[in-house]
Amino acid sequence: MITTIKNQQIKNIIKLNKSSKDRKEQGVFLVEGVRICKEIPASWNPIFYVSEEYYNQKKEEVLDIIKGQEYELVTKEVFDKISDTKTPQGILALVKQPEYTLEELQKEENPMLMVLENLQDPGNLGTIIRSSEAAGVTAVILSKDTVDIFNPKVIRATMGSIFRVPFILNQDMEELVSWLKRKNITTYAAHLDGKDFYQEDLKKPTAFFIGNEGNGLSAGLTEAADKKIKIPMSGSVESLNAAIAATILAYEGKRQRWISE
Amino acid sequence: MITTIKNQQIKNIIKLNKSSKDRKEQGVFLVEGVRICKEIPASWNPIFYVSEEYYNQKKEEVLDIIKGQEYELVTKEVFDKISDTKTPQGILALVKQPEYTLEELQKEENPMLMVLENLQDPGNLGTIIRSSEAAGVTAVILSKDTVDIFNPKVIRATMGSIFRVPFILNQDMEELVSWLKRKNITTYAAHLDGKDFYQEDLKKPTAFFIGNEGNGLSAGLTEAADKKIKIPMSGSVESLNAAIAATILAYEGKRQRWISE
Repeated sequence: MITTIKNQQIKNIIKLNKSSKDRKEQGVFLVEGVRICKEIPASWNPIFYVSEEYYNQKKEEVLDIIKGQEYELVTKEVFDKISDTKTPQGILALVKQPEYTLEELQKEENPMLMVLENLQDPGNLGTIIRSSEAAGVTAVILSKDTVDIFNPKVIRATMGSIFRVPFILNQDMEELVSWLKRKNITTYAAHLDGKDFYQEDLKKPTAFFIGNEGNGLSAGLTEAADKKIKIPMSGSVESLNAAIAATILAYEGKRQRWISE
Repeated sequence: MITTIKNQQIKNIIKLNKSSKDRKEQGVFLVEGVRICKEIPASWNPIFYVSEEYYNQKKEEVLDIIKGQEYELVTKEVFDKISDTKTPQGILALVKQPEYTLEELQKEENPMLMVLENLQDPGNLGTIIRSSEAAGVTAVILSKDTVDIFNPKVIRATMGSIFRVPFILNQDMEELVSWLKRKNITTYAAHLDGKDFYQEDLKKPTAFFIGNEGNGLSAGLTEAADKKIKIPMSGSVESLNAAIAATILAYEGKRQRWISE
């Protein structure tokens, strides 16, 4: 059992909670909480850290989560230090970052892609990944300047979808646009000057471009898209939350594809 | 100019930021930030509090926001104390709580209502109000145990829609269900055991019942609804975020009504 925060592993976890740079250098990230820890695929090589208190109270539940994989017990005091939440549940895991490539996406016959440019809010990014899985999105593609997908707040907001939705990180947008054109994937820029998107046929290979929360999509990426589309809005609403907008688009894609099945 | 937090008005604002009870007793709430303060209707009787620093830097902008209405200048130090945000913009307003009644909603010929039971997250509630305006929802109706709509975090997340979407508070759900039945409004319970909602005709008078984030809709309200509906979900997603779910439902209502126009 680890009883001190001077332990090297513990020191490292405290660092990994805060530092995107350290997560990147080590190629790992942290997953915290009972529900989401249950869903970590074995191939992501989790090492679990379990508080003594939680282990003693719910040993069966703990063993069911860790499924014979590597784990360390730590004291309650140590766990409170490595937790990123206000009310720690007593379990977190150090997990290997997965790697996906654009090439793998070629296998998908009729993809629906969600492209995020410079999104900054961790809750929005996590929610988009969760909604994307639910809407049947093929993959989420992130520009270089987007918030770190391995930020603990993003991971929590995905509610486990992070393990199931493929994602491409640090994508160069010019390169992506060329690739999408070569693959005959129609690209839609979500833009306030766009056309009502309910008129679009989303049953064909589709990619949505979603921009930054405050500034929207860059002029460059807007111009590079095949079409500018807008979600119609009643009242005096100027814009929708980025996660909400991404979900409405993806779900209209799902609806059209489902109806045509 | 108010220079001390011992001032009675300032003491009261500090209290109003934290206390739902005080907001209710006084029948007021707080609105903070440049963008949302611009949108306060004059009939809501705002009293603005402006930091001296902001006033001196952007006098024209300030005068444009307060439009000849009542205001007080306060020192930067005082403003930092009355602000509910980490990076205060230097303007907030004390506003009268509006009151709407179910009876007023009768005027709407073909309503689409959003009924929220025991929603707890301020960000979710605010986002639902924003999305509801955009989707053309007639009114948002809140059960007694729902988070206080006048919580500053809710107000901020509405992005100004709080001033334009009618809402009914502390609604008794049994009474509501009887009223909806009398008015021939079809009621849909969002429920994981429901039928795919894309098959429903939402062009007629419609009310959606959305439940608590963790526990979903209560058994009572689920049974009371005319139909149980579910948003179809791909992958292994167990549920959607409450604000996301409410938005998908309302936007499908908007889409169907728009197409049939």
